[in-house]
Parts: sequence; structure tokens; C-alpha cells
Amino acid sequence: MESAASRTLEPADLIARLEAIVGDANVLTDARDMESFLREPRDLFHGKAICVVRAGSTAEVAAILELCHQTATPVVPQGGNTGLVGGQIPDARGDALVLWLGRMQALREIDLSSNTMTVEAGMTLAHAQEAAERAGRRFPLSLASEGSCTIGGNLATNAGGTGVIAYGNARDLVTGLEVVLADGRILSDLSKLKKDNTGYDLKHLFMGSEGTLGVITAAVLKLYPKPRAIATAFVGLASPQSALALLDLARDMAGGEITSFELIPRIGLDFVLKHAQGVRDVLAGRHAWHVLLELSSQRAEGLEGRLLELLAAGAEKGIVEDAAVAASQGQREAFWKLRELLSEVQRLEGGSIKHDISVPVADVPTFVEEAERAVSAAIPGARPVPFGHLGDGNIHFNVSQPIGADKAAFLARWDEINAIVHAIVTAHRGSISAEHGIGQLKRHLLPNVKDKVALEVMRALKHTLDPKGILNPGKML
Amino acid sequence: MESAASRTLEPADLIARLEAIVGDANVLTDARDMESFLREPRDLFHGKAICVVRAGSTAEVAAILELCHQTATPVVPQGGNTGLVGGQIPDARGDALVLWLGRMQALREIDLSSNTMTVEAGMTLAHAQEAAERAGRRFPLSLASEGSCTIGGNLATNAGGTGVIAYGNARDLVTGLEVVLADGRILSDLSKLKKDNTGYDLKHLFMGSEGTLGVITAAVLKLYPKPRAIATAFVGLASPQSALALLDLARDMAGGEITSFELIPRIGLDFVLKHAQGVRDVLAGRHAWHVLLELSSQRAEGLEGRLLELLAAGAEKGIVEDAAVAASQGQREAFWKLRELLSEVQRLEGGSIKHDISVPVADVPTFVEEAERAVSAAIPGARPVPFGHLGDGNIHFNVSQPIGADKAAFLARWDEINAIVHAIVTAHRGSISAEHGIGQLKRHLLPNVKDKVALEVMRALKHTLDPKGILNPGKML
Repeated sequence: MESAASRTLEPADLIARLEAIVGDANVLTDARDMESFLREPRDLFHGKAICVVRAGSTAEVAAILELCHQTATPVVPQGGNTGLVGGQIPDARGDALVLWLGRMQALREIDLSSNTMTVEAGMTLAHAQEAAERAGRRFPLSLASEGSCTIGGNLATNAGGTGVIAYGNARDLVTGLEVVLADGRILSDLSKLKKDNTGYDLKHLFMGSEGTLGVITAAVLKLYPKPRAIATAFVGLASPQSALALLDLARDMAGGEITSFELIPRIGLDFVLKHAQGVRDVLAGRHAWHVLLELSSQRAEGLEGRLLELLAAGAEKGIVEDAAVAASQGQREAFWKLRELLSEVQRLEGGSIKHDISVPVADVPTFVEEAERAVSAAIPGARPVPFGHLGDGNIHFNVSQPIGADKAAFLARWDEINAIVHAIVTAHRGSISAEHGIGQLKRHLLPNVKDKVALEVMRALKHTLDPKGILNPGKML
Repeated sequence: MESAASRTLEPADLIARLEAIVGDANVLTDARDMESFLREPRDLFHGKAICVVRAGSTAEVAAILELCHQTATPVVPQGGNTGLVGGQIPDARGDALVLWLGRMQALREIDLSSNTMTVEAGMTLAHAQEAAERAGRRFPLSLASEGSCTIGGNLATNAGGTGVIAYGNARDLVTGLEVVLADGRILSDLSKLKKDNTGYDLKHLFMGSEGTLGVITAAVLKLYPKPRAIATAFVGLASPQSALALLDLARDMAGGEITSFELIPRIGLDFVLKHAQGVRDVLAGRHAWHVLLELSSQRAEGLEGRLLELLAAGAEKGIVEDAAVAASQGQREAFWKLRELLSEVQRLEGGSIKHDISVPVADVPTFVEEAERAVSAAIPGARPVPFGHLGDGNIHFNVSQPIGADKAAFLARWDEINAIVHAIVTAHRGSISAEHGIGQLKRHLLPNVKDKVALEVMRALKHTLDPKGILNPGKML
């Protein structure tokens, strides 16, 4: 009924109308020009589109959405095209346009006393970090793709990363949003306020909705003081249980100074040492598990001493087998390189079936044990490489194929292995997508894991805010 | 149309159906029994109701709401009845029932490794704090009414308080919610997860909605480590500008250790010293403004030394005129008593016209200056007493009547003075309700201050989640 009420346009007419809004040069229709917007870097998802529209301002985004609403044209918002679940890629029908926000890069304002900066959606995360840095502050969201991912995409997907334990997820770093609704109305709530109880909190509804409820065009981001001291340890331990005990000890002794707590399994470290250039093991002996632990402080003095105290207390309790503290920025970067390469090197060990799960932090050790056992029972010789953000209960439970196995045959069992791992996650009341989102990749799984009433509410909200279903159709819901 | 589709019940039949759900003893219909639920402590709001229903479980709340939905009966959820804007009090029509959650007090679970506890909505904030304390943790929400306000009310109104600068507002202290929807469906999302990107974040929509979108029945609350050291200073300064400069200095030197930063004007302190029993001034000289500054740390040693360093640096920069550091728990409590009595003693100076505003932190000094000037121009001799949470930009800009003026004539100018102050707030892109909410008191003001599109979205969401408008009608929207 709704689409019958819409005025449908021929593609050529639609393109002419779009060109009138953004200028000819910003409507791409040539297949070669569109190519990089229709595939994502890992090539898992590719789609088709009428065109790619490069919007240069909020007013342009509003005009584009008004037009798309009138004509019932699907819109796929895109920023840096780094999403891992296909949320930013149109489907194969070819009736959508890709709305690229990458031209909207302005730093609209930086307010040091309020510790906020207002940026447009297309600014890359790295540029946002640099803008904060230049102002003597820190914007603490930190992701592997920070060089190319954009703030708009970070917020639309509620990105996570390595700083969540101290600073929260992307949604926690925002005080205000500007959002264009499905019909082109502009919701302007670029508040710098820390407290505002005048009405429903709408910003949290748009953040994490993967572009299905509105298009984020700008945001007010929280800034933090730059740490004056950072102390980093690479710790060898016997088990995830020991890592959890060390986390509890660190929380108790170092409290708010813990800014990273990353779990690394032996097999993952071995993969890095085998495949990567210019890396070497940190500790002399072999340990079954490792933790990369980082503390940060506003006070220049004493942090390394407190880290050493913490490690000594851990050793005394039998939690810590061995540990090294970075003596220089170079050494710190070398520690981090071992962590950052974990995902990449798995490609060199054949096929890898991936999971981005979270469970209550206390359940991580049991989850790892149960999931390893179940996966090994299903595929003898399969090599789980569970790593990631232990402090947040978020483990990337990636499973490398058995040595010498056929890659295609192994990857053909993706859904089966997902089902096995996700059943264990669900038993622990965990999440099957801790930080990457749902997109296209996990859309079929959502009804299995989500509270039935929560799903009903989500669908009702989607229908209310996007009655024609033009915003990122086929994603999430 | 919708109410025509509903089966209307005679009050007696409705009461019989309610008694079948919760038991006869838990449906109050006698005027004397209902009295305390129909007035709030300051007696600004009183209303009428068919009955007060004391629900004992989530299933009972669900059955009550299903019945109310079928019969289009308005429902006013209530916890500790401490709200300051009349959100918890029914209107005068008398067709509503008050749904009291106070029997639902269970501590369902405490999970120390995940640092969460799951509590029911009717638990008082003080009991929640004590439950955390017994487990060796801290639940850091802290309000004047904590002895009687409930967790359900705290979350429904997104309560603030004195710990916001370090721990955020109430909504920031929650990982999961259980909510009964308008039609009795139970949305169960009692997640303990720190990261979960499977779908829209629904909890933030219910928190702060003042019972207009659903009834919160339980929540998973975040726990924090207990501080091992607390250091408290009472600081004398010349102006809000100096206080802001001290805040910036404290952020720079003490970072995450600042757990309170409260602004106190000379006139407010004088009111306390004049009217309260057993209090005395902290500093020898007279200062135009004061700050109550508290630092907390996980480390037992050195905190007081760091506070002294901070104060010395402030003195050197000419920001701090004088300061005292509490030498004992008793002295700390004496400092806090001066702050906590500020609101209460204003009653003894005649009428007081109140504002609960926030502006960007950097704008607080200018706001105070402009608002004082405008109010004095409108009512010569009026005595503004601006105090509160400077670290959050949240000032309780309460105006005491001129000495000797007629109280009723002064209070008759409430709306006029509100309009003057709120115009200044709006010019600073601030909020006219930083922490108390909208309720009945500020409902008529909302359209003046809220983004038009945001209001349209709020109304659309309300209609979607509560199509018959039975949830807390006449509040907020």
C-alpha cells in the first residue's frame, strides 16, 4: 500500500534529481566508479546499486532522503566501508542507492572546557583522534580500522575496540547527535550536556541501529585528558581462569587505571611468530595463555611501580607465571603488534570460521573450554584461536582449519560451527555479536537469540521511523 | 477509536479483577490507605485514583497491565514517591490506578566477577547501596532521597545526584532491564554483558521515559570497587569562573579520581549557618563561592597528598583563596552536611522559585551571571542561590524571595521567572531539566525547548509502544 502511494521514478529521472541535489560529480553511476562502494575489503559481500551519492552536507542528506522517501528508493548509508557484517553493502537487487557520507568531514567545533568536539559523520576515526590530540585531549575509541572507518559508521554500529574496558563502547562517548530521518526530517540534538532529562533518549536508539532507523550526519563526542603515563605488561599465564583472576586483582589494585586487558592464546601467538615479519616472543618460556595489560594515568609518576606491584601480587598468588613490562614506547608497540596481528595471520593458516561473541566476564573461561571441546568434537583437528577483550567478556572465537584439511570443505561448515558455538554462548546468556553488529551476516541468526518481545519492539520501532522500509533494507531485521 | 475497541469495566469489576491478580490485601481503595500514594512529600501535586495496586512480581505487573490495556485504564507507576516533578502522582480525574512497585524488593542475583547485581524495581536505592557494600563493592548512584526512592524510579527518571561526574547518570549504571509493556508483554533483557550489538538498544528508551513507555520491573546494575581512600576539600573561591578553573585543574591533575565537584554560593552557606543545627563554617575568612571537592582512589596511600598538591597549584594560580581538607570521617560528613542542607534551608527564607538546569560546563559562570542579573531586574531584591553539580554543568538555580516580601505574591511569579531563566538556558543550548525530569511540572515547557523533530519522534514512539495511552498519561508528553 505504501509503495503504491509513492511516486516511482525511472532510474534516469532519479539520478537527475540526485544530481540536482549534490552536483553531477557526486552521483556515480559508472560500474568502475561504484566498484569500491559495492564490495567490502574481505570480499565477503558485494551488491549492486543504481548509483553512489556522495553527500556534502546535512541539508543534502535531508534532500536525498526526502526524495528517496517519496520514490520508495532503498538507501544504504556508507562511511569507511570497513564493517565486518555487510551492513554497508547493498544487496544484489540493484534498486538501492549507496549514500556515502565520506565528504562530510568537518570538525564543526571543539570545546575544551566542556571536553567535547562536534564532528561530521564522514570524518575518519583517526582524524577524530588527531583532532583531539592536537587540542591536548584524547578521543579514546580505538579500532584496527581506525585509519579508514568513519565516526558515522562507528556510531551507527556502536563500535567497540581495545579501549572499551576503560571508556565504554562508541555509544558511551557521545553526548549529542544530528540524524536525518527516513523522510528527510532533520533531528538536531547536538547537545554538549552531561545531564538532560527532557524527554526520551533518542540518540541511543539511532546508535547501534546500523542505519536502519536514520542516517547519523554529525555527533558531539566526549574528550578525555591525555594520559601522562602508560605502563604495559605482557603476561604469561596457565589458563583463562588465571587471566580472569588477574583481571579481578587488577581491578582491585589499579581500578580505573586499567585501559586494556587483552587475552592471547598460545596458538595465536605462535601463528604471529611464524608468519609475521619483525616480531619476536616477549617472554623466555612458553606459556599456554597471555594477557596484554595496559594501565594509564593522569599522574606522570609511579605508574610502572604500581604495575610491577600488581604483577608481583599476581605471581605470589600463582596467577602470573612470568611477565615483562615495556621499557620504551618501541617495546610497547612491539607488544601491541603481537596482539594486533592475531586476526590477520590466521588467513595464512587456511580457512577460519569466525565468531564475535561476548559472555558475562566471569563465564569466559568456561565458555572457552566448552566451545573448544565442542568444536574439536565436530571437526577433529580444528584449531580454535580465542582472543580479544577479556575485560569486556568479548572473545573473537576464531577457528582455524585442521592442518592439511581442504579449505573449502572446512568453510562449508561455517553455519554448523556457528550453531555449535552460539548455542554455548546462548547457554551463558551471552551475545552472538558483541561488537561487529548484525548486518547481513547474522541477520538470520537474530530471531534465534533475541528475546521475542524485544524483536517485536524492534520491528515496531522500525516501522514507526521508516514506514516504507527504505533505510538499509535487509540489514539487521 | 481505540478506546471504543476496549471493554470498559465498572470500577467494582476492575477492582475484583485486580484483587484476583494480587490478592485483596494489595488493592487499596480506602481514601486513607491511598492518601500517601496520591500526594508527594512537598504537597505540590496531589491526585485521585480508582485504587492503589501493590504488585508483588513481574507476572503480576504483566497481568495488571494486560487488564488495563484491555479496559483502557490509565496506570501511574510509582516507587518511593520522591520525584520532584509530579511524574508519580495521578491527575485529578480519578480514572487511573496507581501501580506501586514497592513490594518487589528482591535482590535476584549478585555476580562479583561480572561486577553486576540484578535487583527488582521496588528495592530502595539505599538497600541497593547496602547490598553492594555487603558484597565488598560500590553502587555509586547517590541522591538526597536514597533512603526511600527506588531503583525502578531512579531508572525511569534517569536520576542524577552527586556521583555523576565520576560514574554517570543512572542510565549509565545499567546493563540490562526487564520491562512490562503497555499491553502486558514482558520484555526480558536482563543482560550482564558489557558488549552486545544484537539489535537496537531498547533499555535506553525506557530509562528516562518516566513510565510512559513501559514499567521497569527489574534491572542489572553495574558494581564498582570500593574506594580505599577518600579525600575531601572545602574550598573558598572568588567566582564560578575560579571554580571552573579549579575543575579544569583537577581534571588535569587528578583525572578519574574526582568523584564530586559541588558549587556552593556564599548566600546558600549563610542560610545553612543561620538555620541549621550543629553546623559551622569551615574556613576562617569569608569567600564569595565554595567548592566541595572529593577525590576517591583504589589505592590506600597518597590521595590526600595529591589533593593538597592540587589545592596548592590552585592557590599558586590565584584560583583558590583558601581550603580545608577533612582530617576525619566526621569532618568529611560535616563538609557534606553544608552541601546537603542547601535546598532544605531555603524554605526558611520564604518562597523559593526553583530551576534544575544544565548548560555546557564551560558556560556555567556566564549562565549564573546572566541569570542573576535578569532575575534581579525582574524582582529587585530577589536572592538567587545557585548551587549544585558544577562538574556536570547542572545548577539548581533556586531564587529566594526578597527579604520581607509577600511569599504568595512572589510565588505567583513562578512561571514568569522560569521563563526568564529558561530563556538564558536555551540561549546556552542547555536543559531546563537536567536531572529531575518533566513529569507534570514542566510538561507545558517541553514544546518550547525541545527540537521539533525530536518531539515528533517522541510522540510517534509513545503511540507505537502505548497505542491506547494508558501509561502515565499527562506526564512528559
